[in-house]
Amino acid sequence: MAEPDVKPITIVIPLYQGVTQLDFTGPHQFFSRLPDTEVIVASIDAQPVSADGLVFSGLHDLEQVSRCDVLCVPGGVGCAEAMESDEYMACIRRLAQAATYVTSVCTGSLILGAAGLLKGRRAACHWAWRDQLPAFGAIADEGRVVQDGNIITGGGVTAGIDFALTVISELFDERTAQMIQLGLEYAPQPPFDAGRPERAPAVVLDEVTRRMSPSMANRRSRISKAAQRLVPQ
Amino acid sequence: MAEPDVKPITIVIPLYQGVTQLDFTGPHQFFSRLPDTEVIVASIDAQPVSADGLVFSGLHDLEQVSRCDVLCVPGGVGCAEAMESDEYMACIRRLAQAATYVTSVCTGSLILGAAGLLKGRRAACHWAWRDQLPAFGAIADEGRVVQDGNIITGGGVTAGIDFALTVISELFDERTAQMIQLGLEYAPQPPFDAGRPERAPAVVLDEVTRRMSPSMANRRSRISKAAQRLVPQ
Repeated sequence: MAEPDVKPITIVIPLYQGVTQLDFTGPHQFFSRLPDTEVIVASIDAQPVSADGLVFSGLHDLEQVSRCDVLCVPGGVGCAEAMESDEYMACIRRLAQAATYVTSVCTGSLILGAAGLLKGRRAACHWAWRDQLPAFGAIADEGRVVQDGNIITGGGVTAGIDFALTVISELFDERTAQMIQLGLEYAPQPPFDAGRPERAPAVVLDEVTRRMSPSMANRRSRISKAAQRLVPQ
Repeated sequence: MAEPDVKPITIVIPLYQGVTQLDFTGPHQFFSRLPDTEVIVASIDAQPVSADGLVFSGLHDLEQVSRCDVLCVPGGVGCAEAMESDEYMACIRRLAQAATYVTSVCTGSLILGAAGLLKGRRAACHWAWRDQLPAFGAIADEGRVVQDGNIITGGGVTAGIDFALTVISELFDERTAQMIQLGLEYAPQPPFDAGRPERAPAVVLDEVTRRMSPSMANRRSRISKAAQRLVPQ
């Protein structure tokens, strides 16, 4: 008799409009090389998702995804809208409840926070948004990848790759992570050392901060409202 | 009178079935943050492209793309099939002819080679396929990002991010590259040092090589045939 197609590990990546694509395409590439693992990329009503000019289709319906071992929430400019979607947040809470690992990349940790999943937990976030974590009762951690119990969170965008290797070594072992790392030739050599605010030239940090500031107030206000909704629960 | 929507720089990423998604989603995320730049992701007949379980839709028709400043060819297991597509290769040759920069990530350099664009040029490639470059008259270079005149090539998969920062500093300046690097928090901290064959533990390299070997002979033979087709030109 033929062996049934057993998929012992299920990883779910719940997308939303305005997600930052590299937040999940980075980890997805690494997860897609795992043995005996199904990576489910889903959205509300299986709607195609636009992200930074790319369109992702063929998605699963998030509300029909019954469970997962790893929930992996990406960040993006749309994270505030995601927090305001009852349907999306209900799926996050439901899937997190039975997941072995609850994880995020970038401002995805703010979504976990808004779902009430980070109370008293250390978590990473994009550097520009890290100070919003305490609004949700989380402890902001400047680590690139932060593990606190079954919560594993990555910092901004590209941290998702280091995060993925950490998650893989947790789910499997170091050897499996190293094999995928070699296959994807992950031996980074950034031509510049400007990837963190404390290392970027001051003029670069000032300019990036200046350009972000117009949208900052609006998003901070919406994050603050999401935190207020959380309190009575 | 309103300012016309001028897009002084056009970057074209020509996809094919079986592309490795992070080969182009990495650079795309960085390019998408550039000012006054249009990033066109295209495929033959604008067909949606499946890559590692993700489906990319809303693509441009590659044959309708009139020109570009930067041609950026990603790699992937489908690169041999891409080389065998007259339609795809005609587009690569046509767009390369007028491009300011002809670039690739991973085994995308083999496609550039098969298009006759790398004769006498130094180029990078995924470590496992780098030795195929001389078949196309190219000089294999083990650098993570290699520039030879107007040809800029990146090594395997994740090298596309270091590559993108290099391309951006060429197109604009270091400051622009550093601003995008900070915005995407690119300060990598791989948890393991296994991303290159000379650094990976021997057992990891052996196992990865062993697992690749069944598909290796077929792909090498097809690459060799693509190189033979090139000779009479």
